[in-house]
Order: sequence, then C-alpha cells, then structure tokens
Amino acid sequence: MNALLTDLYQLTMAAGYFESGKAEEVATFEMFVRRLPVNRNFLVVAGLEQVVDYLLHFRFSAEEVAYLRVLPQFSRCSPDFFRFLQELRFTGDLFAVKEGTLLYPGEPALVVRAPIVEAQIPETFLLSTVAFQTLIATKAARVVEAAQGRGVVEFGTRRAHSPEAGVLAGRAAYVGGCIGTSNTLSGMKYGIPVYGTAAHSWVQSFEDELEAFRALQQLLGEHTVYLIDTYDTAEGARRAASLGRPLWGVRIDSGNLVEVSRKVRQILDEAGLPEAKIMATSDLSEYKILELLAANAPIDAFGVGTELATSADAPSLSAVYKIVEMGAGEHRRYTAKFSEGKATLPGAKQVFRYRDHDVLGCAWECPEGDYEALLRPVLMQGERVSPAEPLPAARQRALDGVARLPGSLRTQFEAKEPWPVIQSDALRRLEREVRRGLGAS
Amino acid sequence: MNALLTDLYQLTMAAGYFESGKAEEVATFEMFVRRLPVNRNFLVVAGLEQVVDYLLHFRFSAEEVAYLRVLPQFSRCSPDFFRFLQELRFTGDLFAVKEGTLLYPGEPALVVRAPIVEAQIPETFLLSTVAFQTLIATKAARVVEAAQGRGVVEFGTRRAHSPEAGVLAGRAAYVGGCIGTSNTLSGMKYGIPVYGTAAHSWVQSFEDELEAFRALQQLLGEHTVYLIDTYDTAEGARRAASLGRPLWGVRIDSGNLVEVSRKVRQILDEAGLPEAKIMATSDLSEYKILELLAANAPIDAFGVGTELATSADAPSLSAVYKIVEMGAGEHRRYTAKFSEGKATLPGAKQVFRYRDHDVLGCAWECPEGDYEALLRPVLMQGERVSPAEPLPAARQRALDGVARLPGSLRTQFEAKEPWPVIQSDALRRLEREVRRGLGAS
Repeated sequence: MNALLTDLYQLTMAAGYFESGKAEEVATFEMFVRRLPVNRNFLVVAGLEQVVDYLLHFRFSAEEVAYLRVLPQFSRCSPDFFRFLQELRFTGDLFAVKEGTLLYPGEPALVVRAPIVEAQIPETFLLSTVAFQTLIATKAARVVEAAQGRGVVEFGTRRAHSPEAGVLAGRAAYVGGCIGTSNTLSGMKYGIPVYGTAAHSWVQSFEDELEAFRALQQLLGEHTVYLIDTYDTAEGARRAASLGRPLWGVRIDSGNLVEVSRKVRQILDEAGLPEAKIMATSDLSEYKILELLAANAPIDAFGVGTELATSADAPSLSAVYKIVEMGAGEHRRYTAKFSEGKATLPGAKQVFRYRDHDVLGCAWECPEGDYEALLRPVLMQGERVSPAEPLPAARQRALDGVARLPGSLRTQFEAKEPWPVIQSDALRRLEREVRRGLGAS
Repeated sequence: MNALLTDLYQLTMAAGYFESGKAEEVATFEMFVRRLPVNRNFLVVAGLEQVVDYLLHFRFSAEEVAYLRVLPQFSRCSPDFFRFLQELRFTGDLFAVKEGTLLYPGEPALVVRAPIVEAQIPETFLLSTVAFQTLIATKAARVVEAAQGRGVVEFGTRRAHSPEAGVLAGRAAYVGGCIGTSNTLSGMKYGIPVYGTAAHSWVQSFEDELEAFRALQQLLGEHTVYLIDTYDTAEGARRAASLGRPLWGVRIDSGNLVEVSRKVRQILDEAGLPEAKIMATSDLSEYKILELLAANAPIDAFGVGTELATSADAPSLSAVYKIVEMGAGEHRRYTAKFSEGKATLPGAKQVFRYRDHDVLGCAWECPEGDYEALLRPVLMQGERVSPAEPLPAARQRALDGVARLPGSLRTQFEAKEPWPVIQSDALRRLEREVRRGLGAS
C-alpha cells in the first residue's frame, strides 16, 4: 500500500474535510515550478508514469489505518472517518504533459481534479516523484548538450539519495538524453541500456594488473573497458594495449583528464589501436565536460555519477501543488493564495505552446493559431485513458525539444532572454477578480 | 528481491571472479568518507539497519537472473554462473559503528568481509544507503544545534529525491536530533513522532479563513496549529486569536520571519494567549535559523523541509567502499590503490576513540589507554550477532556526541582545527610496505 507515504497534514486535512462534510467536494490542484534553478533555461519533465502507477494503486492498508487511529491528532475523529480511509481510492481525473516535454516556471506539469481528499493526500508523493525525476532529467539534458554528441552514461546510484532514488535517477537521466545507466534494476524495470565493466577492486583482487586485464578481456571481449588508473595510468594503458584486440577501450577515473587522456590516446594509437575508445569518469559535470572538450581532450564517452544523480549544483526544484478551484460547473469557485512572494494564479490552466513562445491560459480557452495544448487527459474518473508511452519516445521528445530551442537557451548558463511565457488575458482577468473577491487586490 | 539494485559492473566483476575461480576468495571492503562536505566538522552516521536488512535478504529473483542472462555483457558466461547467482546469499561478516556515532574522514563506518562476490555486489546499495542517511543525519544535527533547544521537525518529503528518500530522510533526521517528521510512513515504520496540521489548501477550500480555522480547532483541539499567511498574516493571526483556546499555536510560512513573528507574537499576547507558540517554515536552513535567533525572532519551533531532506548546501558525501585485503590468515594480501588524489590505505582497520582524538589503526591492534573501539560485529557468517537498537538510542548517541565536542567544532562553519584523527604506527608501516610491494613508493 502507498497512501501513508505522505505528510501527516494531508491526513489531518482529510479528517477535517470529512468531518466538515466536504470530503466529496471536487477540488482542482496544479503542480508547477515557481522558478528555474541556477543556470537552467528549461525543465525536462519526467516521472509521470510513477504518478499514474501510484494513483491507480492508491489505498491504505488495514495496518496503516490502525496506526492512524491511535495517533493523538485523530483522537476526535469519528469511526466513520477510518472506514472512509479504508475504502478510499483515486476516482478523479489527471491531466499531464508528456514525459520529456520542456516546461517553464508557472506552467503546470500536471493537474488533478478529484474529490478533495483524493486530490489532497497524493500531494506529497506526486511532488517528490515529479520534482525529483524532472530535476534529474533536466540535469541530464544539460550534461548531454555539453558532451556534444559523445555518449553520456548515468553512473550515480552510489551517491543518489537512497538506492530507490538511484533506480529512478537512471530512468530520469535516460529521459533527459543519456544513452543508459549503470543501475541494473533500472535497466530491467524500464528497459534502459545498462553499462559497466569493472572497478578498481577488480584490479586489486588480482596479484598483478595485467592478469586482471587479461581475465576481463576473456570475459567481455569487444565490451572490455579497462580501468587503467589503479596504480599508474600510463603503465595501465600500456598493459591494456599489450593485450590487443578485442576491446572497446579504457576508462580513466583520476588525475588531470586533459593531460592523461592525451597521453593514453598516444599510447593506444602507438600500439595500433586507434579505434580503442577513452571513457572518462571522476566527479564530472556539464561544466567540467565543457572544459575538457574546450581543451580538446580526446575523450569519447563520459560516465557521470554524483553530479547527475543528485543534480548537485541545484539539488531541488521549487515545485509546488496548489489548489486553484473548488467545485465544478455552476458551483465552481476559483481560489488562489496571496502569501508574500508565494502568490498563486487561480483556476485550472492549459499551456499553449507556439513555435517561439508559450501562452499560459485558462483550461477552457481555445486560442487561434498554430500551437500544441500540452496538458492532456491521462486518467478520467480513476481510469487510464491514454496508454503508457515507451520510454525512448519520451527521451526523443526531450532531445527534439532541446534541439528546437534557440541557441541562447541551449547553453549551460542563464540566458539573458528566457523562453517567453505569456499569461492570457482571460487568466489575468480571473486573477484580478479573485483578488478583489478576497479583499486582497 | 534486492540484489539487482546495483551497478552493472558489480555483476560483470562477479562473473569475472566466478569464471576466474576466485568467487570464494575472501575479501575485505571498508566504507568511509574521503573528506567532510563544506562547513561540516563531523558526520553523524545513520542507515546501518537498512544495510543489515538488505544483507539478510540479499538474493536474486529468477526473473532478475533471466534478465542478466540475455545481456550482451554476460554472453560468454557459463550456465554455472547463473546457477551460482540464483543461489547466492550473504554469508560474510559485517562490522559497523553504531548509528548516531560521530565519524571523521577516513574512518570506516562499516567493514564487510565475505567471499568477494558477496562483498562486491552490495557496494552500490550499501553506499547509497549509508551515505544518504549519514548526509541527512549530519545536516539535521547542524540544524538542531542552530535551533538552540527549540524543536526542529523534518518537513521535506515533497522535495526529497523520490518518495522513498523522504521516508528515509525522516528517519535520518530523527537520528540527527530532530523531534520528528511530517512523513507518516516514516513515523509508522520507524516509530518516530509525526507532526503536521494543515496547508494553505485547507484555508482556500473554505469560503473564508475564520471558518477554516474554526473547523481545524474543532478537529485538533490542543494540537491546533493555524497556518495564518494564506491571505494576510496579521489578519490571519487576529482571526486565529479570536477563537481562543484550545490551540498549540500558529505557523508562518512566508514574508520576513523576524518582523512577522514579532507582530504575530504581539497579537497573540494582546489576545491573552501568551502560551500560544509560533512555528516558522519557509525554506529554512541552519544558516537562516542562526540569523532569526540572532535577531531575537520570537519563534518557538522550526519546520525544515527542502534544505534538510536534500542537504541542499552539500547534497552528497564523498563516500567510498574500497577493498583493503584479499584472503585471510596466512594467505592474506593487503591491497590499496594509488590513483592520483584517490589513494586508499591497506588492511582492515579499527577506530579507537579517545576523549580528545581518534586513532585510526589496524584491526588487530590493541592499544593502551582509555578509548572505545567503534567498529563492532553486527553479522557473523551471515547471521545477526547484535540486536537492532531502538532508534531513540541512536538519536541520543548523536545528541550526546555533539554535546561532548569542543565548542569550536559545534558551529555551522568550518573549524580551524578539525577533530584529530591520527594514523597508528602500524597502519603507516603497512602502507609503506604495500606501496613498496606494488612498486609505487
């Protein structure tokens, strides 16, 4: 069961909605990011499939309900509330942009419309799922851009925020454009190519390096990648080269990668192995890769770990999930908050993507012109209405999206002119009306 | 099953060890952190219980083995290897420091001694488990110190790196000294106090704020915490105060917290509610809490989310898991790597903690004096030999450990003099011998 994986206040509010007779009132919530993290010019959305899976299986176990029943915060609740929780399922609607879509601040990645309890409790899970995978997919897109066509493999599970985060980081990095991951479970679960050959411990477990290399070649043939820096990198390169073909190449994991890769390239070339490749690892990031390639380091592929799996230069998104409407039809009431620096816009929205700008409008608008409406129905009344998409399609969408951006937004640094996101007249009118209605204009 | 949650290279190495006839050779690996992250003067170790649980249940499912069998990297493996994987269990020894122990760079948090395949495959899971929880427990200890006795609650699941990371962050933050978490599943799984009352959506779901507050008070009684900044904080405070007792207090989530908390304090006091407390949230960190308290902001408790659950100013640890010995007894061979900037020390170690310094020595040493040997047996031949500890004991150990530190190390900034960790003579001698033996002196 998964419904208890939430903040306690979602459940005290659920109790309050129930006891106030509001549990069945429909509410609409939207998830969006307040601002782009440092040096980002776009986000690559990921994590939708895990959201769908969660909502389709949303429920409390009997044990979970029993746990809540004895918490002091629920001491005034009626027995009916706990029966209600036990029966609770997600029966609402989910609208979302497709995975791999590029998105900008204020634009909803997803919209949930459901009886308020069903929309409220999932907030925590939905945020941590979509925000994290979007964070990593975005970071991956940056690293992949920096690598200018060279393959980038996600290697970061050991530094991810828990083993499960590593599995999802592998998935999100692939959506963002990596060619694969070292996380084997991620490979199996999501059908992602997996990479990896041997660590320093492999070399150290043999009495000498050459013996370790020979055993590796015997095992892996043309997939062999020798890790050559356990003792002395140049010596390691010469030993690797002495074994000749078959091999894929070598990996370097320490030292000055510009100098070392040149030296190693020379050793491989002189040994008659010009096709042998050089992979670099060692706390790489998009910034370091830009430097390495600017210095013409002869590196053919990159393994990126910590920086990618934790989005180390920007380890969180300011993602929020905010109520925008209560009720439906004639009884609809638009709502917003006006907290200092944290105001929100009322009403369910749609993102209209034009060739060179977006319009953030009301969900009911149907503007003129050549655009794509990004938010589409995924669940209706708790049932899936659009099939899951193969992950390579999401990855291709991200790659295409980045390729279509103006060059100024494709850099690893903050652009002077962000992607234009224009609020529609109708949305601005609605905001003014809601502010007036709440006496907060 | 859990064994596939690892980097592919652990499995190609496993195949190599098996095919080279080395699978049963005993190896010893140690996990330690290379250097302290920015502004840290110590680490608080956490995550051991999840390591034990993983090792006790370590195995591959048939489906996982079938997945590996068709990967190109395993195309040269014998059928025996896959049978071997299917039967694989952890039969080795685990030594570890207790959770809540303070630790310093180079000191092993745990040591694994097992047939090399059983020690190698778990690397990825062990690192991401212990490194992440240690990162968060350490961050929590810093925030708790900054709060100078005021309660700190972990509120960060929505920004954690996946929902599961949020559950573990709640656990680790508690070990580090927080009084509890908002993560309800974390509360149930680990017996941690849970906190939380209502969000802005609660207020917005009602047509007016006072009605929302009244319904909350009816539900929560003396646990009521009004979130007062949805529309106008001072007005929210007056509305909350107008409802009188019972209440715990109010929460402020936006604006200048120094000014706003003073204003709110005044409103509560003038309403005859001097015992009503003020909780602050809103992107808090140890640094912001220091500022708020330096300005005498009348805040009684803190909810810390993003910064704590992601350790935002230092989102990863340089944790590594390195082979230090092959074999045992007469056939023991000490090993180390000498990669530039990433060298390791050979041989199984022990941490001897004295009152005012540590000695990092060889595991077999038995020095004079008054010390505690921090690494203790947890699993022997795959069986648990020391019982799980109640989590409050780990938390108390961390609080006591921090309280015993010299004042210079208890700050939120890098101390001039780090905690002294001295390598024993025997360890230094061993390192020289191994370097000489590998021709790398």
